[in-house]
Amino acid sequence: MTDHEFLQAAIAEAKQGRAEGGIPIGSVIVHDGKIIGRGHNRRVQSGSPILHGEMDAFENAGRQPASVYQQATLYTTLSPCCMCSGAIELYGIPRVVVGENQTFMGAEQRLRDAGIDVVVLNDPDCIAMMRQFIDENPELWNEDIGV
Amino acid sequence: MTDHEFLQAAIAEAKQGRAEGGIPIGSVIVHDGKIIGRGHNRRVQSGSPILHGEMDAFENAGRQPASVYQQATLYTTLSPCCMCSGAIELYGIPRVVVGENQTFMGAEQRLRDAGIDVVVLNDPDCIAMMRQFIDENPELWNEDIGV
Repeated sequence: MTDHEFLQAAIAEAKQGRAEGGIPIGSVIVHDGKIIGRGHNRRVQSGSPILHGEMDAFENAGRQPASVYQQATLYTTLSPCCMCSGAIELYGIPRVVVGENQTFMGAEQRLRDAGIDVVVLNDPDCIAMMRQFIDENPELWNEDIGV
Repeated sequence: MTDHEFLQAAIAEAKQGRAEGGIPIGSVIVHDGKIIGRGHNRRVQSGSPILHGEMDAFENAGRQPASVYQQATLYTTLSPCCMCSGAIELYGIPRVVVGENQTFMGAEQRLRDAGIDVVVLNDPDCIAMMRQFIDENPELWNEDIGV
């Protein structure tokens, strides 16, 4: 599967989260061509301040050996914040594919400084999905990024 | 209550985690003189790669307004890794009290660079607790820090 196809799996997670009444951000972690963890933001659904899409994907992947993380790619519909970037860095994920960084710029530079390959697709569907959500739910969005 | 007394609450969490068969790292988040969230590492107990002690304390504090985080202090028995430091930074926690940074040095400099007040107590009980755990469980410990 291509980066674009794995991004579609992350977008499907984001849309599922929105359908549940939540924040539309999704993520998948891919190892050896297979998705080993998928997740979406659960702030609303689980009352969670830590389950951003990427964190939920890590959680659902479960405990993995370092050798798996170190050969994995994380896909996320939105540029990863400093918390999620810290998790990516902790586990030594070498490659991150970002759906878009136009509505929110996360800690991409920090990832690059750590030697991580960050690919930004700026996918129009990701941008439109997030732009609409932020327009309609500014307070919820601000809560999710700590402002 | 003093920093030392709140650290004791974090140590109690760490000890509870160890008694459950887990990694002995605990944390509490304090706002307005009261503990609003407490937690301990749940890698073993919940099979979680993201519930470090600090993350568990955030999770158990639940959704809080930015104004609360921005007046809170986070206590942790061990120097916070880059994931937990990222969460602290995301929510704008202005002050972090660290039990010890002798057995593991986390992303303290990154926190300081972000303007966060980091106080390191190097408490002998925290050091002894962690040193014994690492000596007895090196593989589990390495897994927790992604190596």
